[in-house]
Amino acid sequence: MNRPFDPRAPRIVLVGTQHPGNIGSAARAMKTMGLDRLVLVAPQRFPHAEADALAAGADDVLAAAQLRPDLAAAIADCTLVIGTSARRRGVPLPELSPREAAQQLVRAQAAGGTAALVFGRERTGLENEELQRCHASVTIPANPDYSSLNLAAAVQVLAYEIRLALLAPDPLRPRAPEPVATGDDHAPATQADMERFFAHLAELLDDIDFHKGRDPAVIGQRMRRLFLRAQPDPRELRILRGVFSDVQRLLGLRN
Amino acid sequence: MNRPFDPRAPRIVLVGTQHPGNIGSAARAMKTMGLDRLVLVAPQRFPHAEADALAAGADDVLAAAQLRPDLAAAIADCTLVIGTSARRRGVPLPELSPREAAQQLVRAQAAGGTAALVFGRERTGLENEELQRCHASVTIPANPDYSSLNLAAAVQVLAYEIRLALLAPDPLRPRAPEPVATGDDHAPATQADMERFFAHLAELLDDIDFHKGRDPAVIGQRMRRLFLRAQPDPRELRILRGVFSDVQRLLGLRN
Repeated sequence: MNRPFDPRAPRIVLVGTQHPGNIGSAARAMKTMGLDRLVLVAPQRFPHAEADALAAGADDVLAAAQLRPDLAAAIADCTLVIGTSARRRGVPLPELSPREAAQQLVRAQAAGGTAALVFGRERTGLENEELQRCHASVTIPANPDYSSLNLAAAVQVLAYEIRLALLAPDPLRPRAPEPVATGDDHAPATQADMERFFAHLAELLDDIDFHKGRDPAVIGQRMRRLFLRAQPDPRELRILRGVFSDVQRLLGLRN
Repeated sequence: MNRPFDPRAPRIVLVGTQHPGNIGSAARAMKTMGLDRLVLVAPQRFPHAEADALAAGADDVLAAAQLRPDLAAAIADCTLVIGTSARRRGVPLPELSPREAAQQLVRAQAAGGTAALVFGRERTGLENEELQRCHASVTIPANPDYSSLNLAAAVQVLAYEIRLALLAPDPLRPRAPEPVATGDDHAPATQADMERFFAHLAELLDDIDFHKGRDPAVIGQRMRRLFLRAQPDPRELRILRGVFSDVQRLLGLRN
């Protein structure tokens, strides 16, 4: 059983798509990011076997897709419409980054509105008349020398940003950098454990006469720096100290 | 004339790609986001007409792609390696979001290091042995009920985050703990140096019979995790390996 889709997820509208395979790939991109509401405006060929093939496991999104004759019909009930645009057009619209667009779409839905993100034709994008129906435009900051994201790639990037906005605790707030995750059960050892570890290491280095007359402080400082930076957890310290003890035992230096 | 690519852009490594078309699509996704350094590890079929066809205008990225027999060879000179992972594995690695991973990769390159982002096979991803060569893993937060981004889609999303990090005036730096004592420049050792260090450590643990019949892989993994996290510099590695050699000599185990 699939989880129900998030009601705050906006509608995705594809206008005048030429290749049915792109509709399938877009459906797949949507579903990977938890989006399910697809509206197709006058697709050139749909339904089509290629759309089904490229949708892979997202055939449910495809099957539930709604068909509309023009953009006006596809967004008639919407309170916020954002159109994707590869580059500046003559249309004076607020220009948003993908992140801003995603946050505005989710916020509009969360507030009880209906939000749509609109993608144009593969080669020619949205017409000016269509962009004029949008509240804002969004542009993926592509390489200016090669900005040809295909339709599914553009859907993937924007759907990804929508997913981040949906997962964020509060989309209104600019998110602070998250703490660096350190894997499963990793909880750094206490400073006291670290000091016991450094004392044991210093003892071992003495035992094997590692310093050979040089000042132990230099090496000691370097090792402190290395292991404090690593932030070992208690289990890692136990392994290292186990190695030290084994070496000391084998050398007959300690019990 | 294309603008030169940003030297802070990390290398993209594709491991064991099965379908040549995916290599072409990945090259296209990279170039749309201004990335050009592609390394292919043992692709099943390459070069191939399908790769060329799907690369569209990114044939220059494809033509400059380097071929390597295994992951170790592809990242030997790297100071930071992040592996993509669809889901939690048995491998305990720091887990990063795409945004965090992109920032760390760009930061590492900007600091004069060499950073790589590694993608696994279409169906099976990276093997545990390959993930263990990585400093951290990155997961795209996909729909848990349908997380099947295809390879090019995953490359597109992560390349997009890398582009955002490259475009940011100063990728916000929640820098890890400050170096403690010496304060001089810390430049992490290369992956090849790290592998030599791990081999030496494994040899020492064998020499002192640390495992006593238990599986060496468990301890080996924990130690990889600890020292990859610490990112030792060449001098720190020399000290540690000097300690290993002294112990081996004292035990009469090596010359």
